[in-house]
Amino acid sequence: MKAVAVKNFERADVATATALGQVGVATVHEAQGRIGLLKSYMRPIYPGARIGGTAVTILAQPGDNWMIHVAIELCKPGDVLVVACTTDNTDGMFGDLLATSAKARGVKGLVIDAGVRDVKDLHEMDFPVWSRAVNAKGTVKNTLGSVNVPVMCAGQLVYPGDVIVADDDGVCVVARTSAAQALQASQAREANEMAKRQQLAEGVLGLDIYNMRTRLQEHGLEYVETLEELGEYNGIRV
Amino acid sequence: MKAVAVKNFERADVATATALGQVGVATVHEAQGRIGLLKSYMRPIYPGARIGGTAVTILAQPGDNWMIHVAIELCKPGDVLVVACTTDNTDGMFGDLLATSAKARGVKGLVIDAGVRDVKDLHEMDFPVWSRAVNAKGTVKNTLGSVNVPVMCAGQLVYPGDVIVADDDGVCVVARTSAAQALQASQAREANEMAKRQQLAEGVLGLDIYNMRTRLQEHGLEYVETLEELGEYNGIRV
Amino acid sequence: MKAVAVKNFERADVATATALGQVGVATVHEAQGRIGLLKSYMRPIYPGARIGGTAVTILAQPGDNWMIHVAIELCKPGDVLVVACTTDNTDGMFGDLLATSAKARGVKGLVIDAGVRDVKDLHEMDFPVWSRAVNAKGTVKNTLGSVNVPVMCAGQLVYPGDVIVADDDGVCVVARTSAAQALQASQAREANEMAKRQQLAEGVLGLDIYNMRTRLQEHGLEYVETLEELGEYNGIRV
Amino acid sequence: MKAVAVKNFERADVATATALGQVGVATVHEAQGRIGLLKSYMRPIYPGARIGGTAVTILAQPGDNWMIHVAIELCKPGDVLVVACTTDNTDGMFGDLLATSAKARGVKGLVIDAGVRDVKDLHEMDFPVWSRAVNAKGTVKNTLGSVNVPVMCAGQLVYPGDVIVADDDGVCVVARTSAAQALQASQAREANEMAKRQQLAEGVLGLDIYNMRTRLQEHGLEYVETLEELGEYNGIRV
Amino acid sequence: MKAVAVKNFERADVATATALGQVGVATVHEAQGRIGLLKSYMRPIYPGARIGGTAVTILAQPGDNWMIHVAIELCKPGDVLVVACTTDNTDGMFGDLLATSAKARGVKGLVIDAGVRDVKDLHEMDFPVWSRAVNAKGTVKNTLGSVNVPVMCAGQLVYPGDVIVADDDGVCVVARTSAAQALQASQAREANEMAKRQQLAEGVLGLDIYNMRTRLQEHGLEYVETLEELGEYNGIRV
Amino acid sequence: MKAVAVKNFERADVATATALGQVGVATVHEAQGRIGLLKSYMRPIYPGARIGGTAVTILAQPGDNWMIHVAIELCKPGDVLVVACTTDNTDGMFGDLLATSAKARGVKGLVIDAGVRDVKDLHEMDFPVWSRAVNAKGTVKNTLGSVNVPVMCAGQLVYPGDVIVADDDGVCVVARTSAAQALQASQAREANEMAKRQQLAEGVLGLDIYNMRTRLQEHGLEYVETLEELGEYNGIRV
Repeated sequence: MKAVAVKNFERADVATATALGQVGVATVHEAQGRIGLLKSYMRPIYPGARIGGTAVTILAQPGDNWMIHVAIELCKPGDVLVVACTTDNTDGMFGDLLATSAKARGVKGLVIDAGVRDVKDLHEMDFPVWSRAVNAKGTVKNTLGSVNVPVMCAGQLVYPGDVIVADDDGVCVVARTSAAQALQASQAREANEMAKRQQLAEGVLGLDIYNMRTRLQEHGLEYVETLEELGEYNGIRV
Repeated sequence: MKAVAVKNFERADVATATALGQVGVATVHEAQGRIGLLKSYMRPIYPGARIGGTAVTILAQPGDNWMIHVAIELCKPGDVLVVACTTDNTDGMFGDLLATSAKARGVKGLVIDAGVRDVKDLHEMDFPVWSRAVNAKGTVKNTLGSVNVPVMCAGQLVYPGDVIVADDDGVCVVARTSAAQALQASQAREANEMAKRQQLAEGVLGLDIYNMRTRLQEHGLEYVETLEELGEYNGIRV
Repeated sequence: MKAVAVKNFERADVATATALGQVGVATVHEAQGRIGLLKSYMRPIYPGARIGGTAVTILAQPGDNWMIHVAIELCKPGDVLVVACTTDNTDGMFGDLLATSAKARGVKGLVIDAGVRDVKDLHEMDFPVWSRAVNAKGTVKNTLGSVNVPVMCAGQLVYPGDVIVADDDGVCVVARTSAAQALQASQAREANEMAKRQQLAEGVLGLDIYNMRTRLQEHGLEYVETLEELGEYNGIRV
Repeated sequence: MKAVAVKNFERADVATATALGQVGVATVHEAQGRIGLLKSYMRPIYPGARIGGTAVTILAQPGDNWMIHVAIELCKPGDVLVVACTTDNTDGMFGDLLATSAKARGVKGLVIDAGVRDVKDLHEMDFPVWSRAVNAKGTVKNTLGSVNVPVMCAGQLVYPGDVIVADDDGVCVVARTSAAQALQASQAREANEMAKRQQLAEGVLGLDIYNMRTRLQEHGLEYVETLEELGEYNGIRV
Repeated sequence: MKAVAVKNFERADVATATALGQVGVATVHEAQGRIGLLKSYMRPIYPGARIGGTAVTILAQPGDNWMIHVAIELCKPGDVLVVACTTDNTDGMFGDLLATSAKARGVKGLVIDAGVRDVKDLHEMDFPVWSRAVNAKGTVKNTLGSVNVPVMCAGQLVYPGDVIVADDDGVCVVARTSAAQALQASQAREANEMAKRQQLAEGVLGLDIYNMRTRLQEHGLEYVETLEELGEYNGIRV
Repeated sequence: MKAVAVKNFERADVATATALGQVGVATVHEAQGRIGLLKSYMRPIYPGARIGGTAVTILAQPGDNWMIHVAIELCKPGDVLVVACTTDNTDGMFGDLLATSAKARGVKGLVIDAGVRDVKDLHEMDFPVWSRAVNAKGTVKNTLGSVNVPVMCAGQLVYPGDVIVADDDGVCVVARTSAAQALQASQAREANEMAKRQQLAEGVLGLDIYNMRTRLQEHGLEYVETLEELGEYNGIRV
């Protein structure tokens, strides 16, 4: 594995990234065709945070956070740190000192497929993190990894400069080149949902809004008047 | 597997269900003889919610939430949606639109052995959910399941109309036919605990309140004056 | 396995234990040479608590909390209950009644490698717990274990009288005999971090504060100007 | 929870159960409409065993195998022991002594949602077991459970007398009352598969045997001549 | 997500792929710089198989194996099926019928980030599979995925035509364009290891073969004559 | 954490260790009072091996096997390598080269709370391993740990020189100072079981051999004649 740090790369537009963050993960994920979602074990360390930024990527070794230091120098305002690991690891690779440094450079948050610590401090400084674990176990600085290379983070491929959207629902990556299109689709989707939400709140059924009744019938759904009429189901007596 | 939707079934009494919800899961579970508790991986998406309602059950296919739409039409005020899945799955089958629709029909909350999304919105609309995962991954509407059949949800058999009690400790099901009795036993237990709590708060020991000393002695518990006297324990030097 | 309850043992100094609690888990763990951290599956039942106290240890049988009652009699103000189990188990061995009793005797909190219940009540009474699970499933009182013996709790050996430090980052044990030294090292570390935090907040890089540049070069880190220059990485085209 | 041992119940026909065992789990599961499959964490302790028998059910407490002794007296030749547990537990509740006793009474094997031990001996005596874990940790005999009551075992409801089919693919339960019908459907399915297997072995495609081409087209599958033509997929450059 | 099936793509050289298979996963993984290893939850369904072939990739929906049928038509002798899933799923997507069809077209084996069934049959027909689970639960054919697109399988990016190496140690992917180089490096590594293995078998120490003694000393390893001299370690008395 | 390698320590008697290995894990664990069992996730890489030897202990860093090389020099015939890790890690720290070296020095096998690779080779050379995972991912040699210090391995404390017993049921540690006594108790237990096994094989029930009937009655077990008489159980209709 080569150990490299890439200094320059094209970033997605910051305003677009920010706007995608405001839309939120579930909608962006749908709007771009249900791709880019990181595994659901990536959870926020505190509720309520919602960000959209551009990825600075890090491929770290287990139990070693050396490359995060290298990465911070290469960050710009609006970036989000994305840490992948060469092997499954939950050590606390990131804490309040690194957060202070990252924040000083305008970094919006951290997505790390490993552990994080000092979570109370991070909450107080309002530096949001999505991680696989909270773990006070610190790390060494002994083995090189890489910075700003494509990384596989929690099941998704992230290129440097891609957009990272993260909120209480999880984390989603949007390719740099399709960020504008994803934002447009997301906003269209939001507008469309707004109308439906109104109808649903008034008691109109999804069955009718989405015209599901015919298709349900075609697929063979059988309505039964009473439970007694059913008798049993899957071998369970009712 | 038959695909059916049962329209009518007897529900537990709504007032009883509500009262069971106020008592809470731990007490109800004890009071009805330690049965009915769903697996502990079912966690609330936000702390503090506490509900008791009547089950509308859904057996869904993995990655498919079609049947939830069918179920909502069959809900009445005071119901709780209970979603089981034919196979282990954590996709986000339920979000703010379905919650809006459910709430409009008086549904109290959702228990789902799968994933949920839009959790920040759900919190803001105060629609509580107990789930196996939070996951922005949405679902399709391609394969039929069933509604209001007995389902195996997180290790428990739930019949339509049973009482669902859920709070920060988890989720418990109470059979419709024994709901009244379970409430009576729960309230008796609460009254009994109230007295004990008072004694314990005053410093009286459980050893004395529950008369454990003799039985401990009969079982052979040996009191040792000092750690040094013990020497070692299970091969560990002290 | 012998069933014993040790009545007397030397405790770490209470003021030292309290001070270690104020420093917090991540710092104490580092300061004492990265030892004593319990597995990261031990999580607080609510955020924000931070304690330091002296261990009263309990070795319990699965599904049985009898020994916790025995232990409470042997507690002194400033103690922390530490429950290990002879086999992996997540039953809710501890709830609001035991917490009331423990609190009445000055116990600061609970660390349990099993389940806990009544978590809303525990939060309201401000009795912090770090556990492997939240689980309403109660326990019996049928099989003896031991109290105040050395126990293996979540991967760490805890002797009675050791210091337990716990906060949002997890739980750490400090040997009684090295508590003073650990506190001194922790406070030195805190002071040192304070200075660095200030520098980092001003935008000085960790690379410079820690003099990493030469060592990175020696290990062979290669800086690459652009992503295009890199071409591919680990077989992924950029 | 009542502690009862039911002495008599109707068993599925032994010959039918045996024949279902010969067909195997995957086919029986399909043939009866994809119901009755236990969770896939239930694995055989050695490969190659294949059984079909009638369930004698046991609801055990964690770390306690007392009820298995009670159950063995109630077994008849052709039975299969099915052990559920009131809480998740992996202790080794069953070993070579119990297997010797069970075998002496004609029991065909064990399905246990907990642990098993002496697995080398069990293999040598050819007593097959499907379990959640292998674990040398033994159990006590202190707390009652029940025998021959309906139990929830690894996610399925099993009534005493139901058919248990188990092989290298896992474990499936067939309701006593539908065993004959399930056997008939299984054998029909096998015959049907035989013909298809022959065609497939000769190189005929499933696409043609099952007439999938039109439906794939209707759903919108697009055939692309070359990878280069595709350009990228889900944001990944090809 | 687009639903496409790519018909043509460049494959790695079959002889090179076969030779990589003979070298084995651990060596190939090392030789190509420790990249390309799938997550270790991918296990063989029976021991002893060892293959090297070219990837035909499939992106499937949870609980749906429709696309595998589409893929088989596009296979050539020497290919290996690689199935990824849009969401975590362990359903048994592949069994003896699909294996018969794949084998008839010269497919060497299957790597599937989901479940497989009929494992006894697959063993008897000597069709090796590496999977995340064994599971008799079958699937539907209702929702489209894609074939021969880049897929994220068990944490690795696999392009169609890449080399798949699999044995008892797991599964590794080698980029098509670096297959020849990886083979050369693997064989060099094997030759080098041969010599070392001979020395080690004669009792020469790795410490001396790899000249570790000086570096251990520089890093500060301290040799202690006796355990008594050590006194305690990490707070544990010796 | 100090980095030390202890050269000399007292070992348990080799003949005793070997004899304990022949008795097997389940019996030894019972005979010494149900202590010393490692967590059940420690599984053999191939079935049938059964060893008893003296522990040479290693505390390794995640992703780093440097200390294993240091340990091998300190091994004597009859030893078993016991590798613990400072953090949860499943990298393949040990393969056929290290096994060749260990075997050349008379080492009987390996117990490792991490990963292992080259498992087919290890099987062929008959070098048994009990591990947490099989994983081709190799390690670096960059960070010191310690050798022959007390280690926490898979939940148990192991001192250098203790006896390690391992077979298909798992791994158990016996304190050096109680090895002789554990062997005696194990052999007595075996003799006792022999007699019982004979009775059980002849059809005598455990209920009678262990005189359980009276105690079952006292605890309140109720025998019910028929399932119909039971009516329902835990809310499930029968």
